[in-house]
Amino acid sequence: MSNNEEILQFKEFSSFVNISFWHELAQMKLDVFKLSDKEVPINAYYSYSQAAQLDPYLCLEYNAFQPSSLDIKDLSLDKEQRPLLFKAPPKSLISNGILYNFNTKEDFKNTSKAKKLFEDLTKTIYADILSGAAEEDPSKLCQFLLMTFADIKNHNFYYMFGIPALSFSTPITTVGACQPLGSFFNENQLQSFKSGVQSLISSTSGVFVVKKSTSDQSTVELGKLNEWNKFYPNVADDAEVPIVAFCDPCNLPSNPGWPLRNLLYLLAVRHKVSKLNVICLRDQKGSLVDNSIVLTVHLPTETSTAGVADPNIIPKSVGWEKDANGKILPKSVSLASTMDPLKLAEQSVDLNLKLMRWRILPSLDLELIKSTKCLLLGAGTLGCNVARCLMGWGVRTITLVDSGKVSYSNPVRQTLFNFQDCVGAKGKDKATAASESLKSIFPAVDASGVVLSIPMPGHTVAEHLVDQTKATYEQLRQLVADHDVIFLLTDSRESRWLPTILGRQLNKIVINTALGFDTFLVSRHGQNVAHANENSSGDAKTTGSDLGCYFCNDIIAPTDTLKDRTLDQQCTVTRPGLSYMASGMAVELMVSLLHHPIQGRAPAETSTDIHSGSSTPLSILPHQLRGFLSHFNTLPLFGHAFKNCTACSQPLLDQLNSRGFDFVLEVLNDSSCLIKYAGISEQLATEGVSIDWDEDLLESSSDDE
Amino acid sequence: MSNNEEILQFKEFSSFVNISFWHELAQMKLDVFKLSDKEVPINAYYSYSQAAQLDPYLCLEYNAFQPSSLDIKDLSLDKEQRPLLFKAPPKSLISNGILYNFNTKEDFKNTSKAKKLFEDLTKTIYADILSGAAEEDPSKLCQFLLMTFADIKNHNFYYMFGIPALSFSTPITTVGACQPLGSFFNENQLQSFKSGVQSLISSTSGVFVVKKSTSDQSTVELGKLNEWNKFYPNVADDAEVPIVAFCDPCNLPSNPGWPLRNLLYLLAVRHKVSKLNVICLRDQKGSLVDNSIVLTVHLPTETSTAGVADPNIIPKSVGWEKDANGKILPKSVSLASTMDPLKLAEQSVDLNLKLMRWRILPSLDLELIKSTKCLLLGAGTLGCNVARCLMGWGVRTITLVDSGKVSYSNPVRQTLFNFQDCVGAKGKDKATAASESLKSIFPAVDASGVVLSIPMPGHTVAEHLVDQTKATYEQLRQLVADHDVIFLLTDSRESRWLPTILGRQLNKIVINTALGFDTFLVSRHGQNVAHANENSSGDAKTTGSDLGCYFCNDIIAPTDTLKDRTLDQQCTVTRPGLSYMASGMAVELMVSLLHHPIQGRAPAETSTDIHSGSSTPLSILPHQLRGFLSHFNTLPLFGHAFKNCTACSQPLLDQLNSRGFDFVLEVLNDSSCLIKYAGISEQLATEGVSIDWDEDLLESSSDDE
Repeated sequence: MSNNEEILQFKEFSSFVNISFWHELAQMKLDVFKLSDKEVPINAYYSYSQAAQLDPYLCLEYNAFQPSSLDIKDLSLDKEQRPLLFKAPPKSLISNGILYNFNTKEDFKNTSKAKKLFEDLTKTIYADILSGAAEEDPSKLCQFLLMTFADIKNHNFYYMFGIPALSFSTPITTVGACQPLGSFFNENQLQSFKSGVQSLISSTSGVFVVKKSTSDQSTVELGKLNEWNKFYPNVADDAEVPIVAFCDPCNLPSNPGWPLRNLLYLLAVRHKVSKLNVICLRDQKGSLVDNSIVLTVHLPTETSTAGVADPNIIPKSVGWEKDANGKILPKSVSLASTMDPLKLAEQSVDLNLKLMRWRILPSLDLELIKSTKCLLLGAGTLGCNVARCLMGWGVRTITLVDSGKVSYSNPVRQTLFNFQDCVGAKGKDKATAASESLKSIFPAVDASGVVLSIPMPGHTVAEHLVDQTKATYEQLRQLVADHDVIFLLTDSRESRWLPTILGRQLNKIVINTALGFDTFLVSRHGQNVAHANENSSGDAKTTGSDLGCYFCNDIIAPTDTLKDRTLDQQCTVTRPGLSYMASGMAVELMVSLLHHPIQGRAPAETSTDIHSGSSTPLSILPHQLRGFLSHFNTLPLFGHAFKNCTACSQPLLDQLNSRGFDFVLEVLNDSSCLIKYAGISEQLATEGVSIDWDEDLLESSSDDE
Repeated sequence: MSNNEEILQFKEFSSFVNISFWHELAQMKLDVFKLSDKEVPINAYYSYSQAAQLDPYLCLEYNAFQPSSLDIKDLSLDKEQRPLLFKAPPKSLISNGILYNFNTKEDFKNTSKAKKLFEDLTKTIYADILSGAAEEDPSKLCQFLLMTFADIKNHNFYYMFGIPALSFSTPITTVGACQPLGSFFNENQLQSFKSGVQSLISSTSGVFVVKKSTSDQSTVELGKLNEWNKFYPNVADDAEVPIVAFCDPCNLPSNPGWPLRNLLYLLAVRHKVSKLNVICLRDQKGSLVDNSIVLTVHLPTETSTAGVADPNIIPKSVGWEKDANGKILPKSVSLASTMDPLKLAEQSVDLNLKLMRWRILPSLDLELIKSTKCLLLGAGTLGCNVARCLMGWGVRTITLVDSGKVSYSNPVRQTLFNFQDCVGAKGKDKATAASESLKSIFPAVDASGVVLSIPMPGHTVAEHLVDQTKATYEQLRQLVADHDVIFLLTDSRESRWLPTILGRQLNKIVINTALGFDTFLVSRHGQNVAHANENSSGDAKTTGSDLGCYFCNDIIAPTDTLKDRTLDQQCTVTRPGLSYMASGMAVELMVSLLHHPIQGRAPAETSTDIHSGSSTPLSILPHQLRGFLSHFNTLPLFGHAFKNCTACSQPLLDQLNSRGFDFVLEVLNDSSCLIKYAGISEQLATEGVSIDWDEDLLESSSDDE
């Protein structure tokens, strides 16, 4: 090093990661990477028009995962299906990177793993230099490594950037002071340089070979890096100091930015350059050229004794991003505080659900569940737990129907209410309070409460109330029509009649749940097997099976059982744990059912069917589940639709289809007409043949509201 | 009726029912009557010192159900066990009544039933008059009937009073104006009357026969009603108008109160009285006598042609209480608005539980459940549901331990939290938020939250944290000691180790619950069968059975499994319905277990045991319940305690007993010492013999917090 030489210092990149990148990373982790920690190509960019006083930044944004170029496979896609190409902002250059997103914090913190990855990238760059690949595409000289651990549960992201720069064995030095480009070129040369450089940037990745014309003093020749040998065939003879230009992210008065390092290394090992003029292109104050500087540098000789670089001796490299104290330490960012809490809640809930898909259940269709609209008839012990559990599964549309008020005994068993809902002259409407509570738990849910008393067979309608009852009927019918799954969760048998027949008429999935003292029933009503004729094979696996409803085992029409009940019959006399068990099963049955190809028409399975192909990935699809707390067990039962059922049989549907509310009104005023319409003979009805043991369950129980 | 005669009008009673009576009725209904609507003797009172402008009131208070006299059976009780006797307030008389508390509003409103009961009481009074019983005890003349329907669920009470007065066939008339007692008696007679009457009231039920002395004009003779014939042997000869005195609840200037009616009827039919002086004793302005009035009345003849009353011809009677408009209609009172809402909530919750006892489960020990103190380790998906379900069963002491904060993904699955608990820099402490939530649901619960991180084997304790860890250990040990049932509901296996061994050491009921993706485990840890030697038979039904703990199937010591978990292992990846099912079962298992004579030492039962005598009235008592959502079923499993268990075996208890925290600290720093202390040979441990299929469950699951 002669006296007027100084060691050249390069200004490192600082990483600048936009919040949008972390959101995108979280999404990718959830939807694409899942448990993979394989390398993922990403794209950053850096500006060569950095404002004064700002560090050179390597920037990552939401679009980091978009490819920087399409390969042939992608081009075969329809134009609309092709991924968007990554585009750097104006006056910026792309830097290609590799993302390693680790599954655990421990993996992330594993320093030997980090070293290995950094070395690997160094090797890649070195190989690209030796092979000439980097000369063809100089962006290969500025690659980076990003190691991350995305704690998406808590919205914390840990990361480390590495931008390897191959190190010369001895330092690079500058020869003389750095000078403005305006003093390195004369006026004509400057104009010539200016007019050429701008149009070449994108095709050269911002690296140019520059040569002052030997024929005149007023033009400058510009070329791509792979044209070096054409520009400077005889570097070694020192006849002329070669010139190279690069787009410089740094704006310090006499120091270049990081991308120059590997470029210099390339020139040293590929072209044996030892002395060089470097134009640091800095687009300042509206001009790409006027504020650029020129450095004259001495490069050490990086070749083996044989005069060529040894591809097996990997040069040392530096370039881990350091913190403010100069230490190489992971950075972290917490997005929780910067995010809209409502968005945070939504993302967090989605996350928990998506986690199920990663390892355990890739076929889980969360969008299907999310978009399923659920109508809950009854907002009591069952309704509250069912609603909560649906929300846990990500269901977003939940409508609760109830005509009752929250009373003091409710909150300890009805999990959407609290003490304040009861205080006052009368408690709040259950339907309203329940839907408000759902929103207070998860604001993104579309919950609504409808205060409505379901018209019931045998509950006579006084003349002056007929219009009002008709309006109620129509409102209920519309609610059933507007939802996909109807849950029957009321506290009486007869309140289930109208929703049962409406669910059948409108071909909805109907899940029925009822509680006894220490027994419960969870069942799914059959849907009309309307498509049976379409399939000549008549195979139940494709056409479905027509299963019974809640009333199919009875030959007694539902009637007013509420009028003369003692206190223990009015109230919910049921072991408190029962509602939790029944509600959980009811919701899980629904979720499983949604995953069956023919959903509500799916044949009834028992536990022997779990390994057959008809089953959903989630579980068997029983028709009825009868739970017995005395034995802590559950029996799957099964029954076909009864052709004379007083709720779901064809003759009744015919009546409803043709007469609408008039038929319903007749039933409300005199439920015995159901027996007539259903075609049950008088004799059969009075003899009361074969009352199923279901009756035991129903007899001893007031169900639950 | 001669010209100076007027029809005598009697002032009816108004009922005055203190709120305390309704509370008492509600309690009696819940605890004693249950579904019975049989007649119940009750006691009211009326004052003969009624303030001016006030109606005569028949009053019922909290003590109405106390007997007015003890029968011989009661007297055989220890003095302390004898029921308190009903006592009327000063200047009041007892009126005996019959309460009919109906089960349904329809029964209550049944007018023909009401008429029948009123007639029955009329018959009784008539029979008492004819038989002379009413003469012996004149309180029999003033009996009443109270029909009620107690809608204790809504704190509404409906009631009707009937106070039957036998009606003469023609009206009673007065002869001349009513006069003050001071003008009826001379001064001496007044003094004589005054001095005698006070002391006699209680023994005469306020009814006296009075006679002016025939020997002098200055004394008055007083007698009981059964002395009539002694006083007036020859009423019929009209030589003298007899005098009767009664304590009069009325204070109208010239009308007597209701009790006089049946007294007059008695005198007419038993003694053929047709003309009579009636002293209406009114204790006013500090004097029993000075403000009393005297009426002279003509009584119709109420005898058959044979001159005696026909016991088979029941006289007509009147006396249903009327409303302000003079109509006989039920009254109602709603206590909800007058009650302290906190009390209302408490009563309502108690009510719902007591209803279970009425018809279905008389042996349910609600006090036992209520007084059971529950410690919940973990306030997450399981902890929240278990706490809610315990509260539903009436458990009043619930302590939740957790070291976590509420995060955005929690509320949709962890049922004690809502969105607001997550907002802010960090969410609320789960333990605190959960206990606050419990109180907001039911203010009477004694809920508390302890923010504490359970020390775990293999989670090394740094030197400077030893004191703090010791304090944590001691706090946890005290918590276990202070509670009766310990629920293990945390999200890792190793966090269950310390509570497991502490629960064993302190001989607590330990209920362990863990979730997999679609499987769950609910089990009860064995308690030391310390009393096995006391019973020489060694019968498991009385000595109990030593069941395994969560770790008994493992021969691997719990160690740090948290450090290197991927996101799906950290989070709760579990089907949402599972927690509801497992929590419900865990609580129901506890409630059943509490009802077994030897509770935690109860042998493990399977479903074949339900009909054997050892079972509780609630259910079988399995050791472990393994639930499989894929089949919607639950298997009861069973295993004895493992003598080399790394958590509950005797060698480890010996270490804990002798070394306390030092032993625990050793385990925290190096969990492998557990294998050494437990006496598992190296070979056994490394060969990994017969790992139970439990491992499958545990392997695939991060449990749940």
